[in-house]
Amino acid sequence: MTKILVIHGPNLNLIGDREVDVYGATTLADINTGLAKRAAAAGLEVETFQSNHEGEIVDMIQRTDAAVIILNPGALTHYSIAIRDAVAAGKAPVIEVHLSNIYAREDFRHTSVIAPVAVGQIAGFGSSSYYLAFGAAQDILS
Amino acid sequence: MTKILVIHGPNLNLIGDREVDVYGATTLADINTGLAKRAAAAGLEVETFQSNHEGEIVDMIQRTDAAVIILNPGALTHYSIAIRDAVAAGKAPVIEVHLSNIYAREDFRHTSVIAPVAVGQIAGFGSSSYYLAFGAAQDILS
Amino acid sequence: MTKILVIHGPNLNLIGDREVDVYGATTLADINTGLAKRAAAAGLEVETFQSNHEGEIVDMIQRTDAAVIILNPGALTHYSIAIRDAVAAGKAPVIEVHLSNIYAREDFRHTSVIAPVAVGQIAGFGSSSYYLAFGAAQDILS
Amino acid sequence: MTKILVIHGPNLNLIGDREVDVYGATTLADINTGLAKRAAAAGLEVETFQSNHEGEIVDMIQRTDAAVIILNPGALTHYSIAIRDAVAAGKAPVIEVHLSNIYAREDFRHTSVIAPVAVGQIAGFGSSSYYLAFGAAQDILS
Amino acid sequence: MTKILVIHGPNLNLIGDREVDVYGATTLADINTGLAKRAAAAGLEVETFQSNHEGEIVDMIQRTDAAVIILNPGALTHYSIAIRDAVAAGKAPVIEVHLSNIYAREDFRHTSVIAPVAVGQIAGFGSSSYYLAFGAAQDILS
Amino acid sequence: MTKILVIHGPNLNLIGDREVDVYGATTLADINTGLAKRAAAAGLEVETFQSNHEGEIVDMIQRTDAAVIILNPGALTHYSIAIRDAVAAGKAPVIEVHLSNIYAREDFRHTSVIAPVAVGQIAGFGSSSYYLAFGAAQDILS
Amino acid sequence: MTKILVIHGPNLNLIGDREVDVYGATTLADINTGLAKRAAAAGLEVETFQSNHEGEIVDMIQRTDAAVIILNPGALTHYSIAIRDAVAAGKAPVIEVHLSNIYAREDFRHTSVIAPVAVGQIAGFGSSSYYLAFGAAQDILS
Amino acid sequence: MTKILVIHGPNLNLIGDREVDVYGATTLADINTGLAKRAAAAGLEVETFQSNHEGEIVDMIQRTDAAVIILNPGALTHYSIAIRDAVAAGKAPVIEVHLSNIYAREDFRHTSVIAPVAVGQIAGFGSSSYYLAFGAAQDILS
Amino acid sequence: MTKILVIHGPNLNLIGDREVDVYGATTLADINTGLAKRAAAAGLEVETFQSNHEGEIVDMIQRTDAAVIILNPGALTHYSIAIRDAVAAGKAPVIEVHLSNIYAREDFRHTSVIAPVAVGQIAGFGSSSYYLAFGAAQDILS
Amino acid sequence: MTKILVIHGPNLNLIGDREVDVYGATTLADINTGLAKRAAAAGLEVETFQSNHEGEIVDMIQRTDAAVIILNPGALTHYSIAIRDAVAAGKAPVIEVHLSNIYAREDFRHTSVIAPVAVGQIAGFGSSSYYLAFGAAQDILS
Amino acid sequence: MTKILVIHGPNLNLIGDREVDVYGATTLADINTGLAKRAAAAGLEVETFQSNHEGEIVDMIQRTDAAVIILNPGALTHYSIAIRDAVAAGKAPVIEVHLSNIYAREDFRHTSVIAPVAVGQIAGFGSSSYYLAFGAAQDILS
Amino acid sequence: MTKILVIHGPNLNLIGDREVDVYGATTLADINTGLAKRAAAAGLEVETFQSNHEGEIVDMIQRTDAAVIILNPGALTHYSIAIRDAVAAGKAPVIEVHLSNIYAREDFRHTSVIAPVAVGQIAGFGSSSYYLAFGAAQDILS
Repeated sequence: MTKILVIHGPNLNLIGDREVDVYGATTLADINTGLAKRAAAAGLEVETFQSNHEGEIVDMIQRTDAAVIILNPGALTHYSIAIRDAVAAGKAPVIEVHLSNIYAREDFRHTSVIAPVAVGQIAGFGSSSYYLAFGAAQDILS
Repeated sequence: MTKILVIHGPNLNLIGDREVDVYGATTLADINTGLAKRAAAAGLEVETFQSNHEGEIVDMIQRTDAAVIILNPGALTHYSIAIRDAVAAGKAPVIEVHLSNIYAREDFRHTSVIAPVAVGQIAGFGSSSYYLAFGAAQDILS
Repeated sequence: MTKILVIHGPNLNLIGDREVDVYGATTLADINTGLAKRAAAAGLEVETFQSNHEGEIVDMIQRTDAAVIILNPGALTHYSIAIRDAVAAGKAPVIEVHLSNIYAREDFRHTSVIAPVAVGQIAGFGSSSYYLAFGAAQDILS
Repeated sequence: MTKILVIHGPNLNLIGDREVDVYGATTLADINTGLAKRAAAAGLEVETFQSNHEGEIVDMIQRTDAAVIILNPGALTHYSIAIRDAVAAGKAPVIEVHLSNIYAREDFRHTSVIAPVAVGQIAGFGSSSYYLAFGAAQDILS
Repeated sequence: MTKILVIHGPNLNLIGDREVDVYGATTLADINTGLAKRAAAAGLEVETFQSNHEGEIVDMIQRTDAAVIILNPGALTHYSIAIRDAVAAGKAPVIEVHLSNIYAREDFRHTSVIAPVAVGQIAGFGSSSYYLAFGAAQDILS
Repeated sequence: MTKILVIHGPNLNLIGDREVDVYGATTLADINTGLAKRAAAAGLEVETFQSNHEGEIVDMIQRTDAAVIILNPGALTHYSIAIRDAVAAGKAPVIEVHLSNIYAREDFRHTSVIAPVAVGQIAGFGSSSYYLAFGAAQDILS
Repeated sequence: MTKILVIHGPNLNLIGDREVDVYGATTLADINTGLAKRAAAAGLEVETFQSNHEGEIVDMIQRTDAAVIILNPGALTHYSIAIRDAVAAGKAPVIEVHLSNIYAREDFRHTSVIAPVAVGQIAGFGSSSYYLAFGAAQDILS
Repeated sequence: MTKILVIHGPNLNLIGDREVDVYGATTLADINTGLAKRAAAAGLEVETFQSNHEGEIVDMIQRTDAAVIILNPGALTHYSIAIRDAVAAGKAPVIEVHLSNIYAREDFRHTSVIAPVAVGQIAGFGSSSYYLAFGAAQDILS
Repeated sequence: MTKILVIHGPNLNLIGDREVDVYGATTLADINTGLAKRAAAAGLEVETFQSNHEGEIVDMIQRTDAAVIILNPGALTHYSIAIRDAVAAGKAPVIEVHLSNIYAREDFRHTSVIAPVAVGQIAGFGSSSYYLAFGAAQDILS
Repeated sequence: MTKILVIHGPNLNLIGDREVDVYGATTLADINTGLAKRAAAAGLEVETFQSNHEGEIVDMIQRTDAAVIILNPGALTHYSIAIRDAVAAGKAPVIEVHLSNIYAREDFRHTSVIAPVAVGQIAGFGSSSYYLAFGAAQDILS
Repeated sequence: MTKILVIHGPNLNLIGDREVDVYGATTLADINTGLAKRAAAAGLEVETFQSNHEGEIVDMIQRTDAAVIILNPGALTHYSIAIRDAVAAGKAPVIEVHLSNIYAREDFRHTSVIAPVAVGQIAGFGSSSYYLAFGAAQDILS
Repeated sequence: MTKILVIHGPNLNLIGDREVDVYGATTLADINTGLAKRAAAAGLEVETFQSNHEGEIVDMIQRTDAAVIILNPGALTHYSIAIRDAVAAGKAPVIEVHLSNIYAREDFRHTSVIAPVAVGQIAGFGSSSYYLAFGAAQDILS
């Protein structure tokens, strides 16, 4: 079955619990469930992965056999050239997502070192960012 | 009937005809048709508008009674503070879309003066960027 | 009768209706009325003009036979070199006004490309900015 | 009687005597007299103060019981964060004035560290800058 | 008959009348006449167009059937990415011209956002800049 | 018992052994012992943790039940937005400490991406930086 | 008796009275009393000094016979190279303190021109910043 | 006979032989011949000179008795203030030419230190750049 | 036996398999074999290590008993101050190597935060970069 | 008798006593004596003045009846626009001197805000800088 | 016989005699001898050339029939775009070498304008930098 | 006899003849004569040298047996790191001189790459700059 890998970067395990004003009340488990439902409906497999470790995210991107990757790099968005290089070297196209509108926050959040090697970016729609990315992944697969 | 306004900025009337390697072969008419179909299915009205004139886009944002605006500001993304101010002053939430991945192009295309006052941004998925934005608009309306 | 031309740039037609916390509750009609009263008292003609179109503002500056121009360029303050050039080429001295204190807002609002070719600048006094500028225009005329 | 304090920063004691091409031929005494006349007519007290010492200006802003301060910080406009902090901490609103159009002079004169904490700024009208500020102060008081 | 389109940007309608020290005493009509004579001699059609509106210039570049465009973008040289995109998307090669030596004027005039997508640039020769560009257009056509 | 967590970032395990001219001859064990003594005297628990891995430090900040965190991020001070986000999302206030005066060293050490979300910063007092931070933590707890 | 000199820079005489949300409700007199108590307990002399004048602070640093200086330069932190040079030339080590976390405020407050020549910096702990600095001074003296 | 001096800077002796994709297949000898023909037809003398040595180009500009200089400074365009000063001090007006469109190449090629003291600049028309400059020189001479 | 440690940073495990146009077709195993042969011939031990985790590379540099380290930090070259500090604190001299010419790639790859504390840098020779570094290590050891 | 005023800025009263490696062992009294001797020999009056207060230096420049001013602004060199304005407004030409070579020290010491309005600058010759300036003043007077 | 050309830029004739702490005690003659020995052993010809003149180095790169060039541009590394262009236009691949680790020296030495068009760079190994480059040249030739 | 070498950089052979408003009417021969007279009076030898070639100036600095060098690098002041390195490597101390006040001219003339390695700098006194430098050289020699 065709697989979509969803990677959640540092501190995303906290959403729904902390900084609710920025990220909303939905938990990561809620999002993973929402993605699983959509995958089931679409006849696709979804694998989800969260890590606070840059190296583990690089490892995961290198190892996966997924057809498309949905990647929320969290804080690593802004400096992890290692993840950028893994994305560029990888075979699966990558869709970058963000819960919040990173362009409406601090200046340092306006730059993504990963976006130039991703297919595209979806930011600012809360948990819907992931679901929209799921739709984009379906488009890419079809 | 609830209306979604879709604004296409300068030079977007040329897509499908010029610079096919950057923007793809889909025409603006194709996209407008695709949006109309989705709107019909969803019981929504879609109004589409293209202009090469910053002032006309500002006028349109001021005058519309749409519930959500999907805005592809084209080249004006990078300098039209007038459109930014219209978006900020407007009552309808605005979703910014781009056909191409602006972060994979020239440096001056990496900055959107409009993004900080939009709800969110979807970039890089070709004509699907619009359809994903339509989905996002539906989420906002529901 | 000696004429003073007052130009209101993009989105200023919305004041009093939108973003009341930034621009106050006075409407543009209120300001225009206030200016007309002062003009009547001073034996001067006031012409007022609002546009969201850079080109129309350039056209107006080129065509006017006013003796002094009071110009609130709105968002165009920060990037319209076309208006700057029209001001520099024009025969009438130009007084730049702003409702809000642009130096207390976002960084990009701290730079006016028009100020170097204006006579002077008055910013931050709400609708009084216009009335102070009217006084300054009277000084210039006398 | 309600008091308006007018502070003249470094080198403003020289105007009318030196650099007449930049600042005009009016002397500081002329301006102070002009302000006193306007105050008398308006039933207000005007206190004027000139100093070349940043510390004395800070002291004066801290100590005054004026209802409004008109402040021409002179060269200190561009670097005195100490005056900025005194303005921000003070109870009286502050109107920043400049004789010359600082935006038409050297680059380093385009930035005011004080403007962000002032009510507003009036620049470029020669001695009229002060009289316009007096009018603005009256508006604030009424 | 093969056509050369000549576009004059904002404020160029004023040359010969205003700021004669910068732009010389030749009027736009003089230049258009000079171009028409050269075209007649060369068996070419020349169409000339002046606008203060960015959008109209974009519209014109999109619609023209000219074989070569001679473009003096005026103030828009420095910020109109919309015109840049129209030039890049257009079928006709574009020659950028300037009356004055933009590199001998204010810093902000040293950068052209349009030059990178033009064939070349001719600046500083007064009305001769246009005639040299006409020669360059002939070279391109032959 | 109320707990204070002390986190030592990359390479801090080497102090006392390497670069003694920069960091002094005290070892990390010495510091941990000094903190433990102070904790015992104050009826508090101290937990100490050293890691060269950004991800482990993020994990630790997320998981701890400490009432206050004393954090020396080492080199990560200057780029780890992931740790910044963990600090911002965490419930325990964080005190940033540095052995050396980072402002007297290379330029890149003058910027802390973590300081804006910490309670405060103590830098330059060698091992005393930690003991002063312990005192600050006691103040916060009382 | 060994003396510790405590210097409070511009506007610090206002704390407790103005901008309580930034600096807290403690007054400078409270802090001076708190320092005096600690000094008495430690058998040390404390001299305190406040000035809004850069020159007086330089004079004081030059003249003092204190063994350690605790310096809160206030706004002068960010531009007074004169104080920096006095600190560098002085015989007594200097500890820089700030009531607020200067790194969580405006950008211009993130740079201290004095820190590179101080022993260390303590910022963000309100009045405790001074007491922590007193402890650091004791460490230096012992 | 009135003389036009044509100076070719470093590496221009290689054109036609190397990097044909950037500079075209025309050789420097071809260009010099083309210029000689035009000069003969116009009753003018043309002297051509190529050097890879900045100092020799300065020497030549100082010594020439030419009425106009056509200068392609090659790589020296971007840093030779010595040539700039020779141009500024010289009696003959200087026309700057470039074979390629320097604004469509690497960023460092977008700045000419010589342009501000030249009459004007012609860039991007291959060998025609020289012939257009020859025409411009004739205009200056007439 | 004297040991040389060779560290390969993030994504270097992919070379030979991915992005062959940038890094060539040689695999990491090939390089490790090539180094082992040279070591055997020279009577030296070579230990090789690859990791995508910054922290593991720091750990390894701290723990090794190698006499020289050959370090290809991969993407971490450009931001890992933690690795820089480990190199600076380490006892073994470090030789920085890169397969590709990092100065011919994206701007962000032109800066190495590690080079200032390395002995030297060898970049651009593909797998030979490692073998040249091996030779340099031998020079250092002799 | 024609007077030369010599102004020594902040911390210059310490030379010869502190930071002897930077400023040498000569005291300010030595320099003043050396200047007095030269003045006596030349039939000129020398007045010397030292202050740590920017305002006092401005006052002195405004009030003096000296024919030439020799000014060592010390740390104020780098930020005192108030002194710059006093120099520009003053009638006496000003010669800027520095004991040390400010271009061989920290970056912030490379910029003088005063030099653009001085006659010239002499830096790096220790106490001889003053004597050379005295010679330059004599040249100006003759 | 296949030739390797070795070019030594400005001031390299002084090594071994001056600034021995930076460049070591080896002379240029020593290095040339060392290269000649390696060449003899490898059946290759080595030609060495030193010049303080940018133009002569450009001339030499243009004229040589060497198969590989080893280039130490000395100070010209940082600004000679003329040499860069000669390298880019040349047929022989160029290896850039430096005796010292340029990344551990002044900021302006961290940028090489030549590196982007060289094959690769070897820096920091003293005279061994040249010998390593000789080895790299052999690799390229084989 | 002890020798002082005076080096005049590019275009200084033109002074007195060209740009008299900037450099004055004194010729280089006048200056050389003035220096020779002072040398004769002081029992010193003066050698003067002018070149428009960076390489010749480097050669001269390397070869001279002068005890002190007076260097006016002209335009090379701002970019010739080759001359800087020759100065730094040389045995003779170097005094940098400029006829004009380089700090009152274009921005690019405010930076000297040579000043950090010179003894000191004298600028702005016309031909007297050289004579003051001669005096400084005498001080150094005594």
